[in-house]
Amino acid sequence: MLSFECDYNTGAHPKLLEALARTNLDPQPGYGEDEYCLRAARKIREACRAPEAAVRFLVGGTQTNQVVIAALLRSYEGVLSAVTGHVNGHEAGAIEYSGHKVLTLPQHLGKIEAGELRAWLETYFADEACEHMVRPGMVYLSHPTEYGTLYTRAELEAIAAVCREYRLPLFLDGARLGYGLMSRAAELTLPDIAALCDVFYIGGTKCGALCGEAVVFPKGNAPEHFTSIIKQHGALLAKGRLLGVQFDALFTDGLYFEAAKNAIDKAERLKELFRDRGYAFFLDSPTNQQFVLVPDETVKKLEGKVRFSVWEKPDREHTVLRFCTSWATTDEDIDRLAELL
Amino acid sequence: MLSFECDYNTGAHPKLLEALARTNLDPQPGYGEDEYCLRAARKIREACRAPEAAVRFLVGGTQTNQVVIAALLRSYEGVLSAVTGHVNGHEAGAIEYSGHKVLTLPQHLGKIEAGELRAWLETYFADEACEHMVRPGMVYLSHPTEYGTLYTRAELEAIAAVCREYRLPLFLDGARLGYGLMSRAAELTLPDIAALCDVFYIGGTKCGALCGEAVVFPKGNAPEHFTSIIKQHGALLAKGRLLGVQFDALFTDGLYFEAAKNAIDKAERLKELFRDRGYAFFLDSPTNQQFVLVPDETVKKLEGKVRFSVWEKPDREHTVLRFCTSWATTDEDIDRLAELL
Amino acid sequence: MLSFECDYNTGAHPKLLEALARTNLDPQPGYGEDEYCLRAARKIREACRAPEAAVRFLVGGTQTNQVVIAALLRSYEGVLSAVTGHVNGHEAGAIEYSGHKVLTLPQHLGKIEAGELRAWLETYFADEACEHMVRPGMVYLSHPTEYGTLYTRAELEAIAAVCREYRLPLFLDGARLGYGLMSRAAELTLPDIAALCDVFYIGGTKCGALCGEAVVFPKGNAPEHFTSIIKQHGALLAKGRLLGVQFDALFTDGLYFEAAKNAIDKAERLKELFRDRGYAFFLDSPTNQQFVLVPDETVKKLEGKVRFSVWEKPDREHTVLRFCTSWATTDEDIDRLAELL
Amino acid sequence: MLSFECDYNTGAHPKLLEALARTNLDPQPGYGEDEYCLRAARKIREACRAPEAAVRFLVGGTQTNQVVIAALLRSYEGVLSAVTGHVNGHEAGAIEYSGHKVLTLPQHLGKIEAGELRAWLETYFADEACEHMVRPGMVYLSHPTEYGTLYTRAELEAIAAVCREYRLPLFLDGARLGYGLMSRAAELTLPDIAALCDVFYIGGTKCGALCGEAVVFPKGNAPEHFTSIIKQHGALLAKGRLLGVQFDALFTDGLYFEAAKNAIDKAERLKELFRDRGYAFFLDSPTNQQFVLVPDETVKKLEGKVRFSVWEKPDREHTVLRFCTSWATTDEDIDRLAELL
Repeated sequence: MLSFECDYNTGAHPKLLEALARTNLDPQPGYGEDEYCLRAARKIREACRAPEAAVRFLVGGTQTNQVVIAALLRSYEGVLSAVTGHVNGHEAGAIEYSGHKVLTLPQHLGKIEAGELRAWLETYFADEACEHMVRPGMVYLSHPTEYGTLYTRAELEAIAAVCREYRLPLFLDGARLGYGLMSRAAELTLPDIAALCDVFYIGGTKCGALCGEAVVFPKGNAPEHFTSIIKQHGALLAKGRLLGVQFDALFTDGLYFEAAKNAIDKAERLKELFRDRGYAFFLDSPTNQQFVLVPDETVKKLEGKVRFSVWEKPDREHTVLRFCTSWATTDEDIDRLAELL
Repeated sequence: MLSFECDYNTGAHPKLLEALARTNLDPQPGYGEDEYCLRAARKIREACRAPEAAVRFLVGGTQTNQVVIAALLRSYEGVLSAVTGHVNGHEAGAIEYSGHKVLTLPQHLGKIEAGELRAWLETYFADEACEHMVRPGMVYLSHPTEYGTLYTRAELEAIAAVCREYRLPLFLDGARLGYGLMSRAAELTLPDIAALCDVFYIGGTKCGALCGEAVVFPKGNAPEHFTSIIKQHGALLAKGRLLGVQFDALFTDGLYFEAAKNAIDKAERLKELFRDRGYAFFLDSPTNQQFVLVPDETVKKLEGKVRFSVWEKPDREHTVLRFCTSWATTDEDIDRLAELL
Repeated sequence: MLSFECDYNTGAHPKLLEALARTNLDPQPGYGEDEYCLRAARKIREACRAPEAAVRFLVGGTQTNQVVIAALLRSYEGVLSAVTGHVNGHEAGAIEYSGHKVLTLPQHLGKIEAGELRAWLETYFADEACEHMVRPGMVYLSHPTEYGTLYTRAELEAIAAVCREYRLPLFLDGARLGYGLMSRAAELTLPDIAALCDVFYIGGTKCGALCGEAVVFPKGNAPEHFTSIIKQHGALLAKGRLLGVQFDALFTDGLYFEAAKNAIDKAERLKELFRDRGYAFFLDSPTNQQFVLVPDETVKKLEGKVRFSVWEKPDREHTVLRFCTSWATTDEDIDRLAELL
Repeated sequence: MLSFECDYNTGAHPKLLEALARTNLDPQPGYGEDEYCLRAARKIREACRAPEAAVRFLVGGTQTNQVVIAALLRSYEGVLSAVTGHVNGHEAGAIEYSGHKVLTLPQHLGKIEAGELRAWLETYFADEACEHMVRPGMVYLSHPTEYGTLYTRAELEAIAAVCREYRLPLFLDGARLGYGLMSRAAELTLPDIAALCDVFYIGGTKCGALCGEAVVFPKGNAPEHFTSIIKQHGALLAKGRLLGVQFDALFTDGLYFEAAKNAIDKAERLKELFRDRGYAFFLDSPTNQQFVLVPDETVKKLEGKVRFSVWEKPDREHTVLRFCTSWATTDEDIDRLAELL
């Protein structure tokens, strides 16, 4: 069945499988100390133009958010996030399980805003009772956001400036970073992000890998004893090579960007296709997730023929459906969807 | 370089890579609800002769120990383990990070003993102040143990009987279960283990998979909302298929057992080779880990030619080296080691 | 200096000090098993008309909220609270430190509303992805609220009905319960609360004791091994008698109610005094906390002569000040405040 | 009934009750910012000859151990303690609840030994796999120990030297510190302890207060935002004055030492009394806890006439009973015990 349900519904880009097969019998040390991890780290440092960066590989998004946030916060600190941030709503309490509160900021199409961040911080520190409240310890944002939207360079610079002023590390969740970088509306490059953030990750799982997220501390500022922290969270892979080999392949000859670009190209075709047929969009997403307002009748017709995500129900007669593209989406998939509509 | 360093130094059994390649483009739902996970679960239920078993797939050993233990214990309970148990010494505090104490029992070549377990429990419950102490909430053991040793059927039955009497779930860590099942000294079968334990896992990472552990609740007794618990630990894989496809392959045509048998056969040859040359063994291991007492001079000669693990230093002139075999160890590897010695 | 800063600025009602002195040399077992705790529990059961109630004494409010919530929730559950609830904003993350998320509901003068609670739950359980979100495990409310407001009987009944329907325990934070019971607007009695809630506490610290909160499980439904849970939180007092003696005295001859009534009477005089002078109120509080809109000039004049809490700044020229009364407030205090105004 | 059960079976020294009554109506700010806390801190700094010390008051022993340990450790660190340490065995897992492992050292009459501590640390840091194990982050000891024994000056100096070498904070649990200071065998003074330890506490609960422990960071080295940490543990008392007033009284005119001296004098009489009657001691305790080997027949005769603690059962015919004295023990109590024997 035709599937636009999510960007993790197929396996890995074939070149990753080839790399896994090619390196399969080469004996390597465990726990991320293999040469593939080292090589992938090197390539990522280059791509980020961050020669001092520390790069570590983790398995999935929630795990990465949990490990990074727990590693950076002191026990009495919380993480500031848009109320729609993945860490706030869709991680089954993984952040709180680590003992930390998610402090919420308003969202604007999934994004936080520098002025509101500053206002929150001013109010907090002006409060005489602030010691009785959770102290803000870092800022979390995702790029692209939950809604597929992107920060402009000016927006991220403004947020980074507030973070520096308040000495709060800025953490960018890049579970779908590839799509953010290759969007036709993209302003921010990988070096930009490395320059502005204190830690971020380059998502593999949702951008063509079987699993894996590359965590980057651009100034070599990984927390002390980070390996122990990772292990303590059950997140240290014995065969770390599985992640190293994949990221090595993704950062060879621009594969990561090429794979993401395919998703963007297909998303643009998909957008056009819906636009041409008069569909309205729930919001304007420049990346691989498209949120379309679909009459309930049409939804029924599509069911059983194409897979999508039901996002929300804005009124009695319509549903917002999310259609995702990925490295694996083909022009033929889009054509078949066009026929169905 | 020749490598007997560990059983996770190569990739996956080629048939697993083939299965991943074959299924790669088939769109599937995420989070372990794909058909490969379902099929692998079905095959595992059959192999365990446990038709009601709930089977879930996690990524690695520490993660599995953390998730299962945290899921089964109430906040005020601890887990009983041999003092040498992996959860006590080698998981960077992953159990304590989840809020639970590891309560330690004496070890005998890595094994706990039913009589000592009973004595511990009797003493605990006889203590008037026991409410001020951590309440035992489950029993953990590994099979094979950290030392490669195995429980006999009688031993495991005796432990299981004490557990039932005290209503403590019995959890068997099977990170290396394949080697335990295929050992020439093996008494316990997979159905035995399913009958005696409340929860156990079938290790993939150390037995031929890229990653993955299959957690089995033989009586369908998975904790309520186990998916949320897994997610909360950052342990829910978006592309759960990665685990499903591998375990489906491992439990097709007995591949899991065949791969483990290779490791056992090679370990027996390796044992013979050392024995023939007059080496003493630190202990008698019937599985894929062999602990050999090696003169320090020989250790120096071997370094740079073959990889092994340094286990401990029993006296001034000898070192205990651990040599591991795996699905990937070949007769040629053993021959080359023979030449080096 | 005249002080209306809070309701915990003086020591204990003199009768409590007398009781402590009277019982001082009587040797008693520790950890709350003394006869004073037992007697206080008996009197509280009577006052609640809850003959099966389990009653336990803890030291302070945040501690009680943390212990009760952690004791009732499973690891993957969160607690529903008004966004203004004490557990959400003013406990330095004590709930999250225990691993649980505070799930927020809108507030109406500090209160939650049954319809909104039901709507939240319906939305949650209708969401296909709800396993990826924090599961609601109990409902928290305070009475009086952070704003001194009270639930009507109908309001609490409606909330309790939703809780029963969804099998969520209802927890009432009664840190200031005495004032809620003795308010002239009070509809809910102690037996009402015992009938409608699954657990609540009768605040001592803010109602005339040196310290202490009496936790009541009206149906004898205290969590198993609650003593261990209390101890694990560092909340088990060795000299539990300190709490028992005080609550025994508070529930002898209606002292708890009498002490609270004094605070209410003085608050009513204070309210009148401000009203007569044309001050507006930030909101209409029927209990011992009064929130008055004061011109900033007047605020300056009062400073150094009377202590109060600065609540918030609604506009450029006014400040909301909170004035609290307690068992210790005298008519003379009110007279002196009148003179200052 | 005659009671030697524990040192927290009566209320507070009468002078503390007087001080509470005398200061009762004086309005003071909450949360430990009252003038009594400030004054008590000043007096404690003087008694410790530690003019830069930060002094904070907490409620009880387990709470203090939990808060101090959690405040000093990073998430991946554990606390080293004698296997018999209170934090290891008798706090219902309060340390683990905070996420930290208790790493155990051998005990010698309840004490740890500098050489063994150093050996443990050397072994740990020599292990290539130490990142997979819990990193030692501080050293915990109690003085007096669980067995009433005392460290000599040389012993504590040696331990402190190892701690400095490995940059591990040294934490001394002084729940019964008064008895340690006033023991006839005492070598260590309060200034000695302040000079050698990084943090310690002066026990109030077991040394004459209703509740309360004074935590001392001798070099002013309290953790940043310690108030938030205390609050987060539910350990911040609203009426902090309760602790301040008591410690102010205890450190006025040497009352703390005087109260402890009474316990020591009575313990010496009690020891003599048993010795004269030919009883053997389980161990030689120089403080207020005496461990006497009593024939089971005698135990039966004593039951119902005098309260004591049953410590352990070394053989079939004897029981080790613990007899405790306190500030409240009188010569008459000892005489009556003599009669019973």
